[in-house]
Parts: sequence; C-alpha cells; structure tokens
Amino acid sequence: MSTPFVAILMGSDSDLPQVQTTIDTLKKLGIKVEARVTSAHRTPVRTHEYVKDAEARGCQVFICAAGLAAHLAGAVAANTVRPVIGIPVETGPLRGEDALLSTVMMPGGVPVAAVAIGSAGAKNAAYLAAQMMALADASLGERLLQDRADNARAVEEKDAALQARLAGG
Amino acid sequence: MSTPFVAILMGSDSDLPQVQTTIDTLKKLGIKVEARVTSAHRTPVRTHEYVKDAEARGCQVFICAAGLAAHLAGAVAANTVRPVIGIPVETGPLRGEDALLSTVMMPGGVPVAAVAIGSAGAKNAAYLAAQMMALADASLGERLLQDRADNARAVEEKDAALQARLAGG
Amino acid sequence: MSTPFVAILMGSDSDLPQVQTTIDTLKKLGIKVEARVTSAHRTPVRTHEYVKDAEARGCQVFICAAGLAAHLAGAVAANTVRPVIGIPVETGPLRGEDALLSTVMMPGGVPVAAVAIGSAGAKNAAYLAAQMMALADASLGERLLQDRADNARAVEEKDAALQARLAGG
Amino acid sequence: MSTPFVAILMGSDSDLPQVQTTIDTLKKLGIKVEARVTSAHRTPVRTHEYVKDAEARGCQVFICAAGLAAHLAGAVAANTVRPVIGIPVETGPLRGEDALLSTVMMPGGVPVAAVAIGSAGAKNAAYLAAQMMALADASLGERLLQDRADNARAVEEKDAALQARLAGG
Amino acid sequence: MSTPFVAILMGSDSDLPQVQTTIDTLKKLGIKVEARVTSAHRTPVRTHEYVKDAEARGCQVFICAAGLAAHLAGAVAANTVRPVIGIPVETGPLRGEDALLSTVMMPGGVPVAAVAIGSAGAKNAAYLAAQMMALADASLGERLLQDRADNARAVEEKDAALQARLAGG
Amino acid sequence: MSTPFVAILMGSDSDLPQVQTTIDTLKKLGIKVEARVTSAHRTPVRTHEYVKDAEARGCQVFICAAGLAAHLAGAVAANTVRPVIGIPVETGPLRGEDALLSTVMMPGGVPVAAVAIGSAGAKNAAYLAAQMMALADASLGERLLQDRADNARAVEEKDAALQARLAGG
Amino acid sequence: MSTPFVAILMGSDSDLPQVQTTIDTLKKLGIKVEARVTSAHRTPVRTHEYVKDAEARGCQVFICAAGLAAHLAGAVAANTVRPVIGIPVETGPLRGEDALLSTVMMPGGVPVAAVAIGSAGAKNAAYLAAQMMALADASLGERLLQDRADNARAVEEKDAALQARLAGG
Amino acid sequence: MSTPFVAILMGSDSDLPQVQTTIDTLKKLGIKVEARVTSAHRTPVRTHEYVKDAEARGCQVFICAAGLAAHLAGAVAANTVRPVIGIPVETGPLRGEDALLSTVMMPGGVPVAAVAIGSAGAKNAAYLAAQMMALADASLGERLLQDRADNARAVEEKDAALQARLAGG
Repeated sequence: MSTPFVAILMGSDSDLPQVQTTIDTLKKLGIKVEARVTSAHRTPVRTHEYVKDAEARGCQVFICAAGLAAHLAGAVAANTVRPVIGIPVETGPLRGEDALLSTVMMPGGVPVAAVAIGSAGAKNAAYLAAQMMALADASLGERLLQDRADNARAVEEKDAALQARLAGG
Repeated sequence: MSTPFVAILMGSDSDLPQVQTTIDTLKKLGIKVEARVTSAHRTPVRTHEYVKDAEARGCQVFICAAGLAAHLAGAVAANTVRPVIGIPVETGPLRGEDALLSTVMMPGGVPVAAVAIGSAGAKNAAYLAAQMMALADASLGERLLQDRADNARAVEEKDAALQARLAGG
Repeated sequence: MSTPFVAILMGSDSDLPQVQTTIDTLKKLGIKVEARVTSAHRTPVRTHEYVKDAEARGCQVFICAAGLAAHLAGAVAANTVRPVIGIPVETGPLRGEDALLSTVMMPGGVPVAAVAIGSAGAKNAAYLAAQMMALADASLGERLLQDRADNARAVEEKDAALQARLAGG
Repeated sequence: MSTPFVAILMGSDSDLPQVQTTIDTLKKLGIKVEARVTSAHRTPVRTHEYVKDAEARGCQVFICAAGLAAHLAGAVAANTVRPVIGIPVETGPLRGEDALLSTVMMPGGVPVAAVAIGSAGAKNAAYLAAQMMALADASLGERLLQDRADNARAVEEKDAALQARLAGG
Repeated sequence: MSTPFVAILMGSDSDLPQVQTTIDTLKKLGIKVEARVTSAHRTPVRTHEYVKDAEARGCQVFICAAGLAAHLAGAVAANTVRPVIGIPVETGPLRGEDALLSTVMMPGGVPVAAVAIGSAGAKNAAYLAAQMMALADASLGERLLQDRADNARAVEEKDAALQARLAGG
Repeated sequence: MSTPFVAILMGSDSDLPQVQTTIDTLKKLGIKVEARVTSAHRTPVRTHEYVKDAEARGCQVFICAAGLAAHLAGAVAANTVRPVIGIPVETGPLRGEDALLSTVMMPGGVPVAAVAIGSAGAKNAAYLAAQMMALADASLGERLLQDRADNARAVEEKDAALQARLAGG
Repeated sequence: MSTPFVAILMGSDSDLPQVQTTIDTLKKLGIKVEARVTSAHRTPVRTHEYVKDAEARGCQVFICAAGLAAHLAGAVAANTVRPVIGIPVETGPLRGEDALLSTVMMPGGVPVAAVAIGSAGAKNAAYLAAQMMALADASLGERLLQDRADNARAVEEKDAALQARLAGG
Repeated sequence: MSTPFVAILMGSDSDLPQVQTTIDTLKKLGIKVEARVTSAHRTPVRTHEYVKDAEARGCQVFICAAGLAAHLAGAVAANTVRPVIGIPVETGPLRGEDALLSTVMMPGGVPVAAVAIGSAGAKNAAYLAAQMMALADASLGERLLQDRADNARAVEEKDAALQARLAGG
C-alpha cells in the first residue's frame, strides 16, 4: 500500500516562502510531503484532477495556501472528504485579513480548518496535519509529544538567557 | 440563434429574497433571465456543467449571489470568459463584509465585477449586466437612459413632497 | 478498548444553542460525543483535568466553543497533541469577530483548527472532526461521502423548487 | 465609424504606476485605450465633459482609478450608462480599504463594477473591460480564451519548476 | 440683502428621520434652513445647479447627509468654497462605516467637515454650522453659549436624579 | 482690534511634520497662525487656559492634531463655541484609525469637524478653516476661489504631461 | 479617616443600565461606591472638580463609562494618579468599537485600564477595582477568592445540569 | 517580609524590546521587577507555577505581554486575584489588533486591565501598576505626582522649542 502523505497546494509560487515552513515542519516530523503550485481560478480543472489523484494515491490531509480572495482551500474541500487545512497567506493591501475571512467563513457542510495568517499559520498547518495523522499512527503521536517538550525547553532556555542578561545588566 | 440571456446563480435558496430584486430589475429592462440554486462547494460539478451549458445556449453575463466565504462568483469566473458579477449577500455574523472581500479581492487574471453588499448591490447587478449587454444592443441602451431619467424624476418628486411638507409643517 | 469519541467543551451554557448543532451532526454521523461546560478562565484546573482524563479514555478530537476573548480552544490545545477545533461563538458587541481572532491567530507550535463564527462553524466543526476520525475508520469515510451526496441532492431539490416557482410565477 | 475604445481616468498622476498595468493589459489584448488625469473633486466640470465627449467618440467602457474617498467611478457612472469599472487605489493610511468601500457600496440605480484594491484589481479591470467588449467582438473573445490558456500554462510551468527544485533539494 | 441660511441636502428621503434633528437644532438656534432631496448619482446636474443657486441666494454652509458610498458632501464641496459638513447616515449592512470613510477621507484641496455617524452627527452638524456662522454673527455666538449652558444644566439635573434614586434605592 | 487668527494645537512635537502642511497652507492663504504643543492628557490645565486666552485674543478657529486615542480636539471643543477641526494623526499600530474614531464620533452637543487621517487631512484642515473665516472676509473667499482654480490647472497640467508621455511612449 | 471608596462616572444617564452591574458587583464585595453623571465634554469643569474632591475624600479608584468617542476615562486620568478604569459602553452605530479604541489607545504617561465593551466589561471593572483595593485590604482579598470559588462552582453546576439533560435527552 | 514587586511575563523573547520600556519605567519609579519568558500555550504548567510562586513571594501586580491570539494575561488572571495588566504586543500581520481583542474582551468574572497596543501601552502598563501599588504606598504616590509634573514640563519645553523655531523660521 502507498505511504500516507500530506499534499500542500499553493495558489502562486510567490506563496512558497511562507509554505516552506510547512514543508520543513512536516519533514522534521517524518511525514511525506507533496507540494504543488495550482490555482482554484487559473487552473481549476488541474486542481480538481490533482485532488482526486492524490486522494487515490494515499493523501491523508490537504493543506492549501492562498492570499486575497483565497478560494483554494474551499475548492479542494468541495472535492474531497479528507480534512483540508487553509493557510491565509499574508499578502496584498489587506495583509491577509481578506484571505482569513475567505478561508474560515465556509458555509455549513464543507469544512476548512483555518490557521493563523502568515508564518505562524504556516507552521501550525503542519502540526495540525500531523496531529490528525497521529490518530492512526501512535509513533507519530510520540514524536509530537517529544517535539512539544522540545519547544517548552526552548522557551525555558530563552527565559534562562533573559535572567542571565537581567542579572548582569 | 438563441436569445441572449443573463444567468443568475445563488448559493442557497435563502439568498432568493435579495436576488428577487435582480430578477425583477432585469425583467423590467426586457432582459431574459435564468435563475439557479447551485453551490460552489456543495454541487461543484453541477455548477461547472451549468456554466458551460448556459454559455453555449447564449448566456451573456453571469450574476452570482453568495454569502460568508462567497466563492461562487470566483468559481464561475474560473470557467468562463463571459463577464461575471458578484453580489455579496448580507448574511451571517459579519453581515456580508466577509462575502465582499471574498468576492472583490480576486487575484489577477480572473476578474469578478463586485457590487455593493445586499439590496443595493442586488439591484445594481441587474443594471450593470444590462449596461454590458447594451454594448451590442442599442435599444437596450435607450431603455437604460429612459430608466435613469425615470429614477431622476422619482428623486425630484420626493423632493417636491419634502418641500410641501416643510411648507405645511 | 474504549470507544473513540469527540469531546465538546463550551465556556458557558449560553453557548449551548449553537453547540447543539455540533452534537446533532456528530450523532447523525454515528460518532460518540461528550459535552461539558467548563471555562478556561473560571475553572482552569477542572478544564485541564478533564482534557487529560478524556484523552486517556479515548477522546480523539476536542471541539471548543467560546465567545469574546475566546481562549478555551487554545488552553485545551496547550494540554494535548490531539487535534483541537475552535468554534468562535457569535455573541457580544463584536458578534464573534473577537472570538475568531482569539481562536485562529494562535502562535506557532500549538495549533487550533478554526471554523466559521456561529452556526455555520458549529456544523462544520462536527464534519471536520468526523473527517479526522475517518482517517482511521473507513466506514465513517463512507458515511461522510453519503452525507455529502445527500447535501448535494438537497441543493438540487431546492433548485427544482425554484424552477417550478419561476415557471409558475 | 470610430474605433471602440476604453477610457481610463485616474484622480491623480500618482496613481499611474498602478494604472500602467491596466493600460498594458488592454494593449496586449489589442484594445484601444485613452488615459486621462482628471479629478471628481478638483476638476468636476472637466471630468463631466470628458465623459460625454468620450462616449460620443466611441468609448465602450470607463475604468476609474482613485484612492481615499474614491468618488471618481461614481461620478462618472452618474453621467453615463456605459459600464464603469472602479479600481480602488492602494494608498493612504488605510491602504485602500476606504477606496474600496467608496467604490463598491454604490446606492441602487447607478452601478460601478468594483475590482480588487491595488495591482490585482488594476490587471483585472482590463480583463473585465475586455470581457464586456467581447460580447460584441467574437475575435476578442478568442484572444481572451487564448490569454487564459497562456495563464494556465504559466501556472503549470511554475509548478514544474517547483517540482524540479523539490526533487533536487 | 438676502438672509443667510444653511442648505441641507440628503441623498434620499429615507435619510429624513436622521436629518430632522439637524433641521430642528438649527431652527432652535434661530437659523434659516432649506432642505432638499437631491442625489450626487441620480440627479447630479440638479445637485450642481442647486449648489450654485443656493450660494448666490446667501447659503453660508452646506450640510450633506448620505449613506453607503456617500459622495454627496464631496460632490457639493467640489462645486463651492463655502464650508461643507458631511453626515454619514447610519444605514445598510455596514451601519455607516462605509459612509464615514467615503465622507471623511477626502483628498487634499477639497475639504469636507465630517461629523459622527448617525444621530449624534446629525445634531452636531447643526451646532457646527451655527459655530461657523457665529464668526460673523455675535448674537448667534451668545445663543450658542446659552445653549451649551443649558446642556450642562441638563447633565447636572440627570445627576441629581441619579443621586436621588441611589439615596432612595 | 486684534487680527483674527487660527490656533493649531498638537499633542506632541512628533506630530509637527504632518501639521507643517497645515501651517504652510494657511500662510499661503494669508491667514495668521499660532501653533502650540499642548496635550489633553499631560497638560490639561495649560490646554484649557490657552484656549480661553486665544479666544479672547481673536482666535476664530481651532485646529487640533493628535494620534491614538485622540482627545485633544474634543477637549478643546468642550471649552469653546468656536469651530474646532480635528486632524487624526497617522501614527501607531492602527495607523490613525483609532485617532479618526476618537475624533469624529463626538456625542451630540459638542461638535468636532473631522478631516482625513494624515497628510490629506492636514492640508484640508487649513482649507476648511479658511472657508469658515471667509464667511466674514470676502477677499479671503476670492483667494480660495483663485487657489482652487490653480489646483484645477495643476491637474490639467499633469494630464497634459501624461498625454505627452503616452504619445511619445 | 474617611472610608475608601470607588467613584463611578458615566457620561450620560443612558449608560446607567450597563453601569448598574458595576455598582451591584462592588456592593456585593462590600465596597463603598459613589456614582455620578458627568461629561468630559458637556460639563468639563464639574468633572474636573469632582475628581479632585473625590480624591481628597478617599476615592481609591475611578471607573468611567462612556460611549462613542469615549474621552471620560482619559479626561479623569489626566487629573489624578489614582488608577482609572474605562468601560467602553456598547452604544451607537459601531456598537462600542469606537469607545474601545478611544479608551484603550492612551498615549504614554497617562494610563487607563480598559475592560471589555459592554456588560462583561461593566462587571469586570468592579472586580478589577476590588483587586486593586485588596492590595491594601487583606479581608477584601479573601472575599475575592471566595467569590471566584463561587463562580467556579456555578460553572460546575451548569455542567451538572447539562449532563443531566444529555443523559435524559 | 518580602519586598513587594511587579512580575512581567512575556510570551516570547521577541517581545522584549517592547517590554524593556515597562521594566525601565518601573525601575525609574523605584519598583522592584521580575521579568520572565513563559508561554500560556507552550509552557502552561510552568506559567501556572510561576504565578503561584510569585504571588507567595510578594508579587502585587502581574503584567503580561503577548501578541497574536494573546492569551497570556487571561491565563494568569485565571490563577490569581492580584490585578493583571495585559499589553497587546504590536506584531504579526494584524499589527496587534488581534492581541488587543484577545486581551481586552475578557468574559465577566476574570478581569484583565488592557493598555494600548505596542510602545504606548508598554509604558502605561508600568504607570498603571505603580498607581495600583501607590494605594498602599504614599511615597510612591508622591513619586508618581512628581513624574507627571516632569512630563508636563517636558511638553512645555517642546512647546518653547517650537515657538523659538517658528519665531526664527
């Protein structure tokens, strides 16, 4: 059987710098990733076909990153019952507020899981996908717990550095 | 050859009270109308097929009404080079502000013509479609000029009523 | 082994009318549900203990509904690596815009999956949780596909009713 | 008879960098363009006279770009029944949110077709005008279809570049 | 010579309930008032002609009330160097936030004096016009001082009523 | 008798770059100006005393520039029945949106004339003060008409430059 | 020596329904309260004098409730170094969003402690004042701990009621 | 007995530049300070334990600085009845508007005292904490009065510099 994977779709290659965090975080957690540039508006048929193909090949979760009137996550969600996560890209004159509302305010029946606008959301999309896949993969759950403990330790180290600085200041 | 017409798509039949103004205004201007309930998210294939079929049968302009993360106009625009007008429906906790941004902030290459949220937009969507069709229909252009003169006269009559009231008050 | 279930937490019993949709949708999909009134601010220890206990008893997904400065989903997400879905409740002078931002703008490392403010989000939280659980439950995936087909048919029936009305009008 | 053309009006020459995209896109599609600096507030009579003159000389569509309390599109729309497209210019402390609302929230009877704030809207204004003119010009419709296919291919090429990069990375 | 007066223009007779406060306050201060229904968009020529005529007949200050993309104050200000006060009418899905931005964010060179959205602004437009006219009318200045003292006394009486209630409560 | 003048108050000397436009425009129109740094919150008594003193010495109009929770215009308006114009300074994380609402949403009875956030407003505050003073100074009214004609000519020259550029391009 | 007390100022007696919660909560905690109707704009001198007098008589904390361009808390804070709490009243077309920004965005040097818009803020203003006074009153601190425990128990009871309902449903 | 102190908690060490103003202002006023990096989401248990420990060691006031969905102040307030001040950090795509709403819109029963977003708020958090502690420390109250007089003098000196500049200009 095929290895389960996460498919990351972005509406434009200008979204890649923000999406790179998502790719890196998933790889760090040991999750297989596919990333595609495909647009809900400019290549709708290709987007539709990719979703169907990816699902057949073992895609567990779709992550969609788009800016402005961000329809990509909704368009993917309309074509699958796999979970779809939407990252509102921080771009344009409204800095992603438009993308957030276009992603999160989905009508009843076709859900999208929205995360924060921009880099915080790009990282959390990866963690959220991993948490979903961990429901069927106990060892991934262990890696998530370990990663969170590492994150906590990083906060503690920053606090220790602050205490040193304040004591010496 | 088939009669040119305007196709009105709404994402939910709860949008009909607002869309009725659009239908009535188009009919008053002597324009043939088709109206359909079809959803970008719940019936994406059906929406796609309708757009292709309507275009083949002589649809000149598409008008799409949707609320919340309103993707319907964008989804239609992705499948045609006929002009697409989007009405952001006044609904939900944000009263259509989400629908406005989801409709108007389209990325470059796939335009949607956005009108005002709610009833003012529903009326203007009809006038805008008529103005587009009048580019190839001089008599429709005459009817638009006549209608605008009627509107101006209505304002003048309201002013006359105000003057009468103030004089008598 | 214990039956997997979804835990629904709400910050106040005044949130219950919106949360009822979530409960009903999950039950319709055949998913076991627990619902609790517990507050991130007024009963923080109790909330923490419930999360740990629920996770140990087989809770797969947490759904948290809160209004205003809605911290409940974030507080739960800080204590588990199970997926956490946040419903911004439509309440207060800002109608849930505050709850949306408090829910969705989570910092990197502790994700929350946000859905729409109010009733659309309450329904989609259930579908999203079901989609996550279907990653490890193929028959649930089948029920989701069936439910979506039912939804599509409902749209088609509403369109048929509209056509009948327009033809007779 | 005179060649049909699109008239582009901008409220200030500081809007030209955004409007240049509109001019370039129309020219690429083979459409004749006139561009004028004229203000709804500082040169209202001149604006009015230009609209009447342009319409008499064959102007099919007006495109108006303005920032802040952007009244230019509305002022033009009040003086013609040709379609008027409004581009909210990204400028000032509110980055064009004021211009968007001043452009799109037109009262019933005098429509303006609003596009996105800033550069995405500047490009789409051109496409939208072309789509309108294509209703009476089948060869322009062909060029629009060709252009959209080119755009789709550009997305595919960016995806191919991403795949190459990911494979080599 | 003609009596100086204030001209109040409203875009629609549905604005009259809010504008009535303006009329009443001006009359209470002994200022002559003309009120007209006239639209920047539906009757632009008539609006222009009225402004010129009113100014010639002794209009000192124009007060313009409009909702949505409220262009009326700006359109009047473009045609006179008399002070123009804009009242953003509380109407439509955005409750006047659009009217506020359309009124207040005027570009440099053509000022509009904006007051609050809705009833508070409708009252203050009258006071502001009176303050302007008092620059050339000392007795009007006296009436304004007297009126303000009356207002202060009204606050003191409300406080006295509160103290009585609290003492008795 | 003392020469009439305009008093410009700013809450902080960091507001001076925006206020300089106001000073320069008033001087260009031949109006005497006083400018003071004084704060509604940090020097409330001094602000109060200055207002009383300036009014006694012939101040006709007060212009107040402040950012954030901009109370300066309201605090001045509470102490005079001379017209008070408020400039919302473009500063801080909200870029002046807070200053706009703090300036314009005054309760009934104590009006402030609000202009646009930032540099457009700073220029228009000067024009608005001049328009008010012109009610009692016909020669100032002439200068305002002349200045507006100059502004219109400047727009025409920019248009001529654009035509030259487009013809040569 | 005089009994320490909390002074509650409201800009209008229409704010009393929201302020009543503040009065009741303070009384429940055994804190002496004075409540006054006084306006930053309509009775500025009286407001100033009351603050000085109240402080001399033992006022420990000022609580100010105001709507729209809510300046009352800032005006009080400018006249005392006692802590000042601002309640943004839920009123007007913007439902208190203007009052929130006018209250919370105070410039450096003159702090106001802002609480939530409307009823939640009205209750929390009382708790916050009590927490401040408890710094010098240990028995009040005990009452606050007891009250919080009561609140927690109330949440638990609501949860119990929900469990009973779900079990019986 | 232990010296009373203020505890400053920040969610990330990237918040330190803004928080440094708070530390410096408290020290200038002679108040003992502890500063810690600790996160409501990444180190919830550690945050809880620190609050309990700090309170036992004499912490009088907690100041919490956080950005995005800023839950830190609320999480601390849920664990103490000491006053908690929240600084919304200016960061992320929404520039702190999300942090403001997450901080200030607390539900009834668990108050947070919110100050302005960013640097103005960081300074005022220190003043507000000092004002609270001055309720039990008369000499600190004297220092606050002295500091405010110094601030007033600084405004006067800036005004003097402006007068010199204008006289010489």
